[in-house]
Amino acid sequence: MEAKKEKEMVVNGVNVGQLFGTIDQIKIQPDIAEFKFRATNEWVSGTHSRATVKDFYGALREDDSRRPVVFDLDEPPILLGQDQGTNPVEYLLVALSGCLTTSLVAHASAKGIKIRKVQSRYEGDIDLRGFLGISEDVPVGYQRIRVFFKIDADLSDEEKQELVRTAQKYSPVFNTITKSAPVSVLWEK
Amino acid sequence: MEAKKEKEMVVNGVNVGQLFGTIDQIKIQPDIAEFKFRATNEWVSGTHSRATVKDFYGALREDDSRRPVVFDLDEPPILLGQDQGTNPVEYLLVALSGCLTTSLVAHASAKGIKIRKVQSRYEGDIDLRGFLGISEDVPVGYQRIRVFFKIDADLSDEEKQELVRTAQKYSPVFNTITKSAPVSVLWEK
Repeated sequence: MEAKKEKEMVVNGVNVGQLFGTIDQIKIQPDIAEFKFRATNEWVSGTHSRATVKDFYGALREDDSRRPVVFDLDEPPILLGQDQGTNPVEYLLVALSGCLTTSLVAHASAKGIKIRKVQSRYEGDIDLRGFLGISEDVPVGYQRIRVFFKIDADLSDEEKQELVRTAQKYSPVFNTITKSAPVSVLWEK
Repeated sequence: MEAKKEKEMVVNGVNVGQLFGTIDQIKIQPDIAEFKFRATNEWVSGTHSRATVKDFYGALREDDSRRPVVFDLDEPPILLGQDQGTNPVEYLLVALSGCLTTSLVAHASAKGIKIRKVQSRYEGDIDLRGFLGISEDVPVGYQRIRVFFKIDADLSDEEKQELVRTAQKYSPVFNTITKSAPVSVLWEK
């Protein structure tokens, strides 16, 4: 009986009981929902740098319990690098991919929709004349990004399309990219 | 003499000769500058997914020569995950960190400015009431991101500030986030 109860509360690996409990808590005390995420970066050489992710702030406290995770960033030789890591604009697609996927699965789980498989692919266009300062008319960032989802679940086409719309609506990375966010860059002595 | 010549062409590990050669080529044939970057993602369970980066298109050809790099994305337990990877909004900061750093170093190198050290840190604010659908008034994405740079180089304060401004101006990830980019999300049968 206890096992059955637990099974009912977890959908697609998402603890829906915890999810609804969190939502109830936040409605009473909204500042629980304020999170700060962080990274640091140290330049190595040329186009190679190394980023570290460890602590964050959320639910009214600092969390320093995670082990640090280190990411190498570099460019392929054609872009002046030595391929010591994935490049920054590729990391942006990685971020978008995880965020849309989590958003899709979390919101489906909250509705009790069972999902067997979610696959997606990402492609973004960049014209390097922006980065290289060759043309002021060319956007420096991604001109557009295309995403394609495949979902394996007992759902109609319309229901799958609705899931993909929901994923976009609630994905923090999708919304940061499509609606923009202010970034202040300061220099410290 | 040959060694000296080579040394003069590489500044901060950036092959400035190759950089200027690329700029000259692009001025003659602008479509060399059109790049497409890609990622794929496969959901694992709950908030855990796995992204892969491998091929890209650029300089008029497909490049499939790199080995695939796999990234795990998950959430900490407080955000319904099991800490099987860094979370998507943290990956966004990783992307931003590498891009601003590379932009800073590449543009400094093109001007012949020698740099000893570049360190930076990133913090972004997210109110989860957006993701959780508790409030329509709260932005779903980052509300703001703060970046702090430390640069070790024989430069005046004004010159360091100018470098940080240049880094922002030419960074593709910075410009994608601050100016937004359209993302089309389609569902495939």
